[in-house]
Amino acid sequence: MGERVYNFYPGPATLPYEVLEEASQSFLDFNHKGMSLLEMSHRGKDYEAIQNETESLMKELLDMPDHYRVLFMGGGASTQFALVPMNFLKPGTEADYIVTGSFAKKAYEEAAKIGKANIAASTKGSNFDRLPAKEEIKLSASPVYVHLTSNNTIYGTQWQELPSFGGVPLVADMSSDIMSRRFDVSQFSLIYAGAQKNLGPAGVTVVIIDPGLLEKANTDLPVIMQYKTFVENDSLYNTPPVYAIYMVNLVLKWIKKNGGLAAMERRNQEKAKYIYDVLDQYPEFYKGHAQKEYRSLMNVTFRLPSEELEATFVAEGAKNGLVGLKGHRSVGGIRASIYNAMPVEGCKALAEFMKEFVKKNG
Amino acid sequence: MGERVYNFYPGPATLPYEVLEEASQSFLDFNHKGMSLLEMSHRGKDYEAIQNETESLMKELLDMPDHYRVLFMGGGASTQFALVPMNFLKPGTEADYIVTGSFAKKAYEEAAKIGKANIAASTKGSNFDRLPAKEEIKLSASPVYVHLTSNNTIYGTQWQELPSFGGVPLVADMSSDIMSRRFDVSQFSLIYAGAQKNLGPAGVTVVIIDPGLLEKANTDLPVIMQYKTFVENDSLYNTPPVYAIYMVNLVLKWIKKNGGLAAMERRNQEKAKYIYDVLDQYPEFYKGHAQKEYRSLMNVTFRLPSEELEATFVAEGAKNGLVGLKGHRSVGGIRASIYNAMPVEGCKALAEFMKEFVKKNG
Repeated sequence: MGERVYNFYPGPATLPYEVLEEASQSFLDFNHKGMSLLEMSHRGKDYEAIQNETESLMKELLDMPDHYRVLFMGGGASTQFALVPMNFLKPGTEADYIVTGSFAKKAYEEAAKIGKANIAASTKGSNFDRLPAKEEIKLSASPVYVHLTSNNTIYGTQWQELPSFGGVPLVADMSSDIMSRRFDVSQFSLIYAGAQKNLGPAGVTVVIIDPGLLEKANTDLPVIMQYKTFVENDSLYNTPPVYAIYMVNLVLKWIKKNGGLAAMERRNQEKAKYIYDVLDQYPEFYKGHAQKEYRSLMNVTFRLPSEELEATFVAEGAKNGLVGLKGHRSVGGIRASIYNAMPVEGCKALAEFMKEFVKKNG
Repeated sequence: MGERVYNFYPGPATLPYEVLEEASQSFLDFNHKGMSLLEMSHRGKDYEAIQNETESLMKELLDMPDHYRVLFMGGGASTQFALVPMNFLKPGTEADYIVTGSFAKKAYEEAAKIGKANIAASTKGSNFDRLPAKEEIKLSASPVYVHLTSNNTIYGTQWQELPSFGGVPLVADMSSDIMSRRFDVSQFSLIYAGAQKNLGPAGVTVVIIDPGLLEKANTDLPVIMQYKTFVENDSLYNTPPVYAIYMVNLVLKWIKKNGGLAAMERRNQEKAKYIYDVLDQYPEFYKGHAQKEYRSLMNVTFRLPSEELEATFVAEGAKNGLVGLKGHRSVGGIRASIYNAMPVEGCKALAEFMKEFVKKNG
């Protein structure tokens, strides 16, 4: 076995090692049933217990209103970009999108193929280095929903305080920061998150929905494209991605055991601070992409004085067990993704490496 | 660990034990990279190699035309029920469906929500105990495609010879018998299969497509709903279900190592014969649901003289390590799903159990 590295990939991303160990122990035989969980019927009691518990844990950890539902779907957040407008953006209505990054823009573009979608605000002008101020956001007269992205993985920005717009249903893509901090779920009508950053492996998307939203939903869609189908059938209308959901279950238990969202939030603040402190200490060498007040606790993005130095940084980092630090081509430079499962020690190690790197190359 | 049982579940279903063992050995650390495959970027070389190899293995094992593509998608076959007509059943066109079971019917119903879909033939009249004869199939004047289901999991029927209709593009749901026998892929324009029966765990759908079909596809759809997007981006437009695809890779290698599709076919014929021979030996006790000439090699369905005896059969089977034998409510009775990964010994053991059961209860 290779020595375990610190994995800064943006997603699929590092998972808690305890979770991997537990999963590996039950891989060949689950619950002493003489078969792997991967071989078990999704209509059986063993799997049913897992899925029900996963929903309950999500509700408990996020302190969700009782009537909200948690759904498990396939196809990733990109599929939700289309499903949200297909379900709710009916002819004669309009929806507003806050465009704060590449994924927010993709969500808007999918909606614009389906119905009347408006850009209520965009920070593209400064390459998405910030989020819009409340007064910059121009809602249309009567949007059926407002869509936002809580954390922008590629650019490293995050809403410090999630906005709300009176009675307008709020829809959020929280793929890259769900479970990383406390927030008021009741403020949102629909939240979706691809699992592969903060929830588990790639292959399942978690959807949190206020079933009240379904009253105005389009029922003229294929059955499998309707949220209603998943609510009414407890996500068992067809075969769910069983194993990915099981892994989410283990990750949620790990979060609970480690103090829940309040503890995750404190730890994520501590972790990010190690790295941002180095940016602030060496502002001539490390140029953070995000404006300070919008800095993400999940993805830290920065440039070095030259692309050559950036390449050296990535390569030397990898030699030192700090893997996956190359930034996205839209920003360039370096990105350190430090989701819940990144240990404090990983962030400390990266911060130390950064300081040494300045001394050698600054 | 519980002693390994023979698992007759219809899907998720039994997997080759060698595949599970190999996957478990690399679960915590993949390719000596200090991380699990579940934590690796889908844009990295390790994963890219897996996905490319999986496509190559599919093409090789199925002896596919070179220009055909293999796609990896989420959402299960049920999502394909909608995507096929969304992509190809444009206004002013029509498509024909051969309705031979519950899933075939669902595929038709989703299409009928999207455009003009016709039932070209249906065997519902006799509770789907057979497939239509060629002369029963009434195609419309100019269908954009004909859709069929190669094996009907719930009813236990299977096309012995897959039909073709001259130049009309043929679309097939092969979820429950892909890789179980040889067939001519070039006869089909699009094939889809949820992995959880013959290919791997739940969570990925394999799509085989003749890219020529895309010339007439609807491009006015959300990007994520277009097959074109998956073809042009090698199934990497968004994050694919990495781990499920890795498991498919291992299953395909297992098939290759064990002689490919010709060997699978022979073995599946041998396996099914053990069980069907018992049905034929005790026709007063075991009533097969499928008419003889349409019997499936993948799902064997039959009734016993009473529901009480059926319940006893399922319970005693489980005590004897024969698990998952309860039939679907649409047929009742017993269903033994004996996909590729079911060992010959499992089918022999079931046949012996059935004979003993008649002696005790007949």
